[in-house]
Amino acid sequence: MDKQLAFLQEIDKLKSVVRKSPLIDQSRRENSAEHSWHLAMYALILADSSNQAIDINRVIRMLLIHDIVEIDAGDHPLHGAADNGQQEVLEQQAAQRLFGLLPENQGRELIELWREFEAGTSDDAAFAKALDRFQPLIHNVATGGGTWLEANVTEAQVNERYGPTINKGSASLWSKAKNLVENHFR
Amino acid sequence: MDKQLAFLQEIDKLKSVVRKSPLIDQSRRENSAEHSWHLAMYALILADSSNQAIDINRVIRMLLIHDIVEIDAGDHPLHGAADNGQQEVLEQQAAQRLFGLLPENQGRELIELWREFEAGTSDDAAFAKALDRFQPLIHNVATGGGTWLEANVTEAQVNERYGPTINKGSASLWSKAKNLVENHFR
Repeated sequence: MDKQLAFLQEIDKLKSVVRKSPLIDQSRRENSAEHSWHLAMYALILADSSNQAIDINRVIRMLLIHDIVEIDAGDHPLHGAADNGQQEVLEQQAAQRLFGLLPENQGRELIELWREFEAGTSDDAAFAKALDRFQPLIHNVATGGGTWLEANVTEAQVNERYGPTINKGSASLWSKAKNLVENHFR
Repeated sequence: MDKQLAFLQEIDKLKSVVRKSPLIDQSRRENSAEHSWHLAMYALILADSSNQAIDINRVIRMLLIHDIVEIDAGDHPLHGAADNGQQEVLEQQAAQRLFGLLPENQGRELIELWREFEAGTSDDAAFAKALDRFQPLIHNVATGGGTWLEANVTEAQVNERYGPTINKGSASLWSKAKNLVENHFR
């Protein structure tokens, strides 16, 4: 149990990893721990919107753990100019260190679940990734632009950066999102 | 889908409900959204510590939604002098309004799950409540006192206020916690 408690204390640091996305009331930016909670709620509420039959409990678990690597590797904003190769190396190292705090079997199980999320190829991961792209879009629309304004992102860039990932997991969410984006840029 | 999205936007406000408990690095107090994420992780990691066989997926769902009523009713600190009857009325009204934003069946299902958590009588709810009591204890110990120092809480009061709830859900977690508490007050 000591290893489990050490892990649970260590991941408290995810509450101090600040994302670019604003809260809807624009009082501050969102942190990655509360973002993970919000995404788990998105999964619970929108489970029926997935293109494929999914195991919603696995999707929720994926979303609960998907950002934990940011404790070591930092957040990786969608509209930033990051070195994706370097970021991936950092995240793999972070996963080894952080999930490595757990008892071996439990740590291995969570690393595998996190890698499945990152790969985005299974049906569960595709839906989880769709939600991870959909929620910040909702926040940007609800706050009159959010990170799009800050990064001078055009409507075409939004469609290109959000569309494929959201549509792969949920055509109905992308249909809704596309409408919101059109109205926003009109 | 519009009702579901309205609910998911509304619950963004849980990120602005600030609890008494500190983050472990003491940089600020914890909010109820990131607290809910942390508890869901506690459930995922500590599932085997439950006294009774539980459905861990239901426990995780309970913990994800357990504080949503605080958006309207506010947080209710363990060591405060609150009117429990009045608080319960506020929380029932909050549950009606907030889960009432959802499509009827989905809203009813979540209200029932939240009421089961509040009652604390089912095995799933007993374990969820144990974790909700255990995590702030860990933060108080890790920060040299936390809310116990602020509220001048004695070791006897800690045992009385945390013991029965934690022990009902998990004797092994309470055994661990009792040791930590003894060392803290030594």
